[in-house]
Formats: sequence, C-alpha cells, structure tokens
Amino acid sequence: MPKFKTVRGMRDFLPEQARVMRYVEDLAREIAKLYGYKEIITPIVESYELLAAKSGEEIRQRMYAFKDLGGRKIALRPEFTASIARLVATTLRNEPKPLRLFCVGSLYRYDEPQLGRYREFWQSNFELIGSNQPEADAEILTLTNDLMKRIGLENYWFKIGHMGILRGILTKEGVEEEKQNSIMQKLDKKLWDEALRMLESLKVSKNCLETLRNLIKVKGRKISEMMERIRKNVKDYEEALVATENLEEILNITFTSGTKFEVSIEPAFARGLEYYTGMIFEVFVPELEIALGGGGRYDRLIELFGGEPTPAVGVAHGIDRITLAMEKQKIKPKIPKEPLVFVIPIDNTLKAKALELAGQLRLKGINVEVEVMGRKLARALQDADRRGATHAIIVAPKELKEGKVVFRNMQLRVQKAIEIENLLKEIQESYGRISAS
Amino acid sequence: MPKFKTVRGMRDFLPEQARVMRYVEDLAREIAKLYGYKEIITPIVESYELLAAKSGEEIRQRMYAFKDLGGRKIALRPEFTASIARLVATTLRNEPKPLRLFCVGSLYRYDEPQLGRYREFWQSNFELIGSNQPEADAEILTLTNDLMKRIGLENYWFKIGHMGILRGILTKEGVEEEKQNSIMQKLDKKLWDEALRMLESLKVSKNCLETLRNLIKVKGRKISEMMERIRKNVKDYEEALVATENLEEILNITFTSGTKFEVSIEPAFARGLEYYTGMIFEVFVPELEIALGGGGRYDRLIELFGGEPTPAVGVAHGIDRITLAMEKQKIKPKIPKEPLVFVIPIDNTLKAKALELAGQLRLKGINVEVEVMGRKLARALQDADRRGATHAIIVAPKELKEGKVVFRNMQLRVQKAIEIENLLKEIQESYGRISAS
Repeated sequence: MPKFKTVRGMRDFLPEQARVMRYVEDLAREIAKLYGYKEIITPIVESYELLAAKSGEEIRQRMYAFKDLGGRKIALRPEFTASIARLVATTLRNEPKPLRLFCVGSLYRYDEPQLGRYREFWQSNFELIGSNQPEADAEILTLTNDLMKRIGLENYWFKIGHMGILRGILTKEGVEEEKQNSIMQKLDKKLWDEALRMLESLKVSKNCLETLRNLIKVKGRKISEMMERIRKNVKDYEEALVATENLEEILNITFTSGTKFEVSIEPAFARGLEYYTGMIFEVFVPELEIALGGGGRYDRLIELFGGEPTPAVGVAHGIDRITLAMEKQKIKPKIPKEPLVFVIPIDNTLKAKALELAGQLRLKGINVEVEVMGRKLARALQDADRRGATHAIIVAPKELKEGKVVFRNMQLRVQKAIEIENLLKEIQESYGRISAS
Repeated sequence: MPKFKTVRGMRDFLPEQARVMRYVEDLAREIAKLYGYKEIITPIVESYELLAAKSGEEIRQRMYAFKDLGGRKIALRPEFTASIARLVATTLRNEPKPLRLFCVGSLYRYDEPQLGRYREFWQSNFELIGSNQPEADAEILTLTNDLMKRIGLENYWFKIGHMGILRGILTKEGVEEEKQNSIMQKLDKKLWDEALRMLESLKVSKNCLETLRNLIKVKGRKISEMMERIRKNVKDYEEALVATENLEEILNITFTSGTKFEVSIEPAFARGLEYYTGMIFEVFVPELEIALGGGGRYDRLIELFGGEPTPAVGVAHGIDRITLAMEKQKIKPKIPKEPLVFVIPIDNTLKAKALELAGQLRLKGINVEVEVMGRKLARALQDADRRGATHAIIVAPKELKEGKVVFRNMQLRVQKAIEIENLLKEIQESYGRISAS
C-alpha cells in the first residue's frame, strides 16, 4: 500500500504533461528574447509583508504564510509582480529605463482546487518598467497575443478594462482607498449587486450609482462604440475621462500596428490585485472559465515599495492553464521526432562496450538508451519496441571481433551486421528513410 | 528608502546570472534527452512525513516545515528523491522498468548561508529506477561526468564510496539502524573521532573499531590498489566484501567503457541522506569546498514508501553551485550572439508603425526592442547604444512616405534610407559583416 500521496491541490506532471509545460515555457522565453525581456529569477520564499502589501484581501487570505526557523514571517509567492517591484526598488534602482524583465516559475495560493485552478501553478511573467506611454501597454498586449498565436490557440479573446475609470469615479466621490479595494474585489468576482449595495452604504451620489450601473452593462467588441458609451457615462468624472482616453489610445496603437485579436471591452471589469492603476486585461478561450493570463498597468507600486516613482505595465501567463487549453483545443506541441537508439550487450563481458558505443553516439547528438536490466536479447528488444526505439544495436562477441555490431531497424524489423564506424551514417540514412515513408 | 529585501538565505538572480543558470539547466536537459531520461515535474510542497522519512536528522531539522490553512503538516522539498520515490510507489507503480526520470527545480534547506550554500538552491536530478546492475550505477556516474565536461569544468574529481561497506560492518556488529544513521551523520561531516567514540560506546568488537580506523585512512585514486586495501580490511565482514566487489565492478565498467575522470575512493565517506544502500559519490572542483553534485544507490526507499521492491540509483547536480564553479574557472556559457534591432518612431503618430515593423521582424526571428519612453531621437539612440543594439530603425515621416525607413548600423555609426521590404536582408548582411570583422 502506498504510504504517501501529493498534498491536496498539488500535482505531479508526468513526462507527457511536463513536456507540454516546458514547451509553453520555451515559447514564452522565445517571446521574451524577441521583445528584449531579460530573464531574472527571484525566490519563491519572500517576506510576508512584501507579498501581502498590495496583493488584495482575497489573495492575502489564501497565502501560504508561515514563520521560518529564525522566526521571520515569510510566505510562498502568490504572484510575481511584488518580487519584481522589490527588485526594481532596490538592486535595479539605478538601472536605466525602460527595464524589460521576464521570469517564469511556480506560485502558490490556497484556493479550492478545481479545473485549471491548483494550489501550485506556473506562470511566465513579463514586466515593462519605466514607461507611462500607451505603446508600452500595447507592447504587453501584443506580446501576449504573439504567445497565444505561437501556441496555436484559437478563438481566444482579451477582456479589457481600465482601473482609472473605476477609481476615477470613486475617488471623486470621496470613497477612501480601502473601501475602493473592497468594491474592486466584488467587481472582480462579478458580484455587481453587492458592489452597488456597498457603494450605497457609503452614501455616494445617485449619479455615481447610476454611472456604475450603466458601466456594468457596457460590454462589446467595437472599440469606437464602446469608448463612446463609456465616455458618455463618465462625463462628470474628469479622471475617469482621462483614463478612457488612455484606454482608447492603447487600443488604437495596438490595432493600427497590425496586431489582431478579439476584444471584449468591459469598463466595470476589475482584478483582485490592488496595485493596478491603468489598463487591465485577461485572456480567455471558450473552453475554459478561468483566464489563461492577465495583467495591467501599476504606476505606483515601485514607489510604494520605496523606489523612485516608476510607471510599469506587465502580464502573467498561466502555463499550466495554457496546457489545459491546448488539450481542450487538441493542440500538440511542435517537437521534431528524433531517432532513439537502444544498445543491448548480449552478455556481462560486453556491458562496458555497450556503454562505450552509447557514449560515442551521444557525442554525435544521437539519443541512446542502454539495456541495464541484465535481460536476455529477446526481452530487451521487446522493451526497446515499447519505448519507441527506432534502432537497436546488439553488441555480440562474434561480430565485435570483426569490429562490427548487429544493427536492427526496429520499425522494419530487419537487421544486419555493420562496421561500428558506419553506425552514425546508417542511423541517419535509415531514419531518413523511415520518416519519409 | 527601500522597504523590502530578500529573506535571509534567498537570492535574486539578475539577467547575467539567470542566463548562466538556464544555460546549465539546458545542458542538463540535453543530457537527459541523450540518455533517455524523461522529465517530470513534482510539487515543491510535499507532506512533511514524506520528506522527513529518510532525509536524515541533519536535513530533517533544517526543513521549511509548516501547517497549511487546512492544518496539513507540509514542507518545502529539501531534495528530489523522496518525491520521485513517492511517484514510483504510486502513479508510476505499474510502469515497466527501467524508468529513467529527470527533474529540475528549486529546493529549500534552512542552512547557515555561506559561499555556495543558500536556503533556496537549484538542482537537476536524474534517477534510474528498476535496475540493480552495476552498469546502472556506471550510467549515473557517466552522465554526471558528461555534464561536467559539456559545461567545460576542469580538474573536477569524483569522491566515491559505498554504503554497503559501512552498513555491512555495523550490521554484523549488531548496531541497530538508527544508531548506524547517527554514525553516518558523523562520518558525513568528517567527525571521525566522534564516530569512533560513538561506536566504542555501543560496545562493538575491537576488530570493528580497528577496521573503521583503517578504512578512514584509505583514500586514493588507484582503483585496484584501493580495492585491495578495502578488501583486506573488511575481510571478516561478508556483506562489506560483497559491497566492495560491487564497487569495483561499477568502477571497472565505467572506466573500461572509455569514460575518463579523476576519482578519490574513500570507503569511510558517507552522505547525510539515510536512504542510500550502495555506491555513493560527490563531485568537487579545487576552487570550492562544497560538492557540485552527488548521488548514489537507494534500493529500499521505494519499497519503504509502499511500492514494489525496486532498486534505484540517482544523482542531483547543484545548478547554482555549478554556475559558481564556472565563475571561479572563468567559463562563459557558449551562447551565440544575435543582432538586436532598436526601432524608434520619431513622433507620436508613428508609434503604431514602429510596433508594426518590430512585429514583422520578430516573425523573421529578429530580436527587436521598441522605443517606448517617448524620447527624442538622439536620446533614444544613446539608449540603443547602451543596450548593445546592433542596428536602429528610425521611423520618420519623409522616408515613410516613400516606403522607407532610416537604417542605422550602430557599430559603424552609419545610416541610410532603405526600403522597408529590404530590412531583413540588410540586417542579416550587415550583421554578418560586423561579426566577421
């Protein structure tokens, strides 16, 4: 009886799944390279205070927080941005801007496990730091779209909003920041009525309630039409108008540059993280209820962490969620097939020779497994077949005396004795023939 | 004033360092592919009981252990093997053997931070599961040697011992397992006298004490000579003699197969992890006191975790330690240089066009950064220079009207207007010229 299992909400990824995870990670890293984002690695364990500062009530309550053996209050990161803002406020303080930073790794939240939502999950994360220009937001949207396209996802769309619209209204109404945060948490969960009731209890103006009620109804893909509707609704709130202009500029630059993706513009859309100040977005596919990724602009976080005032915009892509979407859309990673050679020594005295041949082939870039179970030839060949070996090399005394081994094409089930020095050529030629057939 | 910093013992890796970390990880993954090790991903958070079972007193006391919000006693993994043994005892229970598994990731121990020893560290890990044959041990030694060679490390050596020799002696003397474990902990720390005193207090035979005292002195690179000395010393302990034979067979197969590395055979060498049953080893370079990697055979762990009796042998390579050794030996990652293009729109109306050109070049595999700070041309060019851009593309209204942009060679400091459609060709040609000069 197995004595141990994974902790609830944690997962093992078996080879097939791990391969897809690394494939998505590699594509994200490729995007980072193409866009000039430099990879950094920050710790999974950070001070609780740092991670709690602006993550929002929801995440704060679900953090893996504890004391280390030195009594420090620490936690496992629930997201990347806090760590990166810390780095920009300290070690990277004097680096010329813009800074383009990329990171990838696992994150932790004590959520109720469900499809696509686990307590350990993986993200690739891009941050563009130092620019308050709309083309910076456009770059983050564009690179996210590039990643989705390279993966081969279909029918995805971007849900886009702007925290400046919501906060602009509430600030003018005198709603203090903490109350604003609570309302955003409600909006994030689409608890529209609760958000409105909360506002009512704060005695905001009738105009404000009406504006919010209307904004909740605005949702659509036509940019100019949506912008017109938002503008009309928020006309009494100057900051919200500025935010609306900003959102329109971002979308115009993005789409004029030739980037194409479906959008759903939703001005009442909020995200749980409290640090957002500008454009925010999430990416969805029809097959999943959860977002594949999301991000936005956070112009005050780095300053809040003690750095210089530094505008910034970023995005995180859920690597394991993307692999789930790939599964749903039946997308396979594009990984080229390669030959796999299985080397079998037919007796104990030939084990070292088998290892030697394997080593020589690996130096030429050939993937080689060696029989290490001490099995008889027939059983070893069966195993080679099961493992998808394209070729077997049988090391036997008679042939070896003549400088030869038995070379078997596993797919055609034919074999012949060949000179050891011709092995590489034979594998390449025979592999070419097989894959072409 | 910065408000937050990394938690003691945790580190940020800046781009230059992160690049080397990923380089070593990629080399390890390349080795895994060449040897047929399939990558799996296991969680960083595991049940405390699993991780504590056989990790040894030293590690057990230094685990990041805590309760999750559901009251489960969990911990951050201090090593990979327990997770993999769990997987083999459960999900992979019925997979045909041998299983070759690879994983890579971060691990956690509350050690006193010092050069090369941190509380968060990274390893690549290889496990060959299901074979009790000496060629399996040889494969683990050989692939470790391959990794060191591919990295370009020099003057490294393998310290090699065999737990069967030490345990064989102690078992015959009737020393119970827990006491044996304590003695191994002392030997692991080279506290020879303490180990011997502990044995004395257990009232083992004089012969046993003498044997241990002699074994501690055996240390050398000549296999046959060392084996002879060990054999002579342990002649009264049958199991230890069998272990000695096994060690000799492993080394013979390894070196007869053409693999070459320096060894130091040390029969009194022990490792802190309690699950080892056979050959054990660590890899060192002269520049560092800590091991770059280590591993060994553990034939009873999977059974102990409730799986079938399954022999296994594995190794973990310290990725961050290896990068430290590279630094000490002045080894740079072999990463090819590529062109970096910097696109600058000279006014606001050209921002979308700049993004568009950048997108087109990225589709061709060119790395492109776009000016997103709204800076004037001269300052943007300065910045491009500082970032090591090889080319700049200046998007200006006059040239654009003729379907052209200004193309600047940053190294030669010359520029000309060229057709947009010729951009890719110009970059490739001009880059070839520069790197050849």
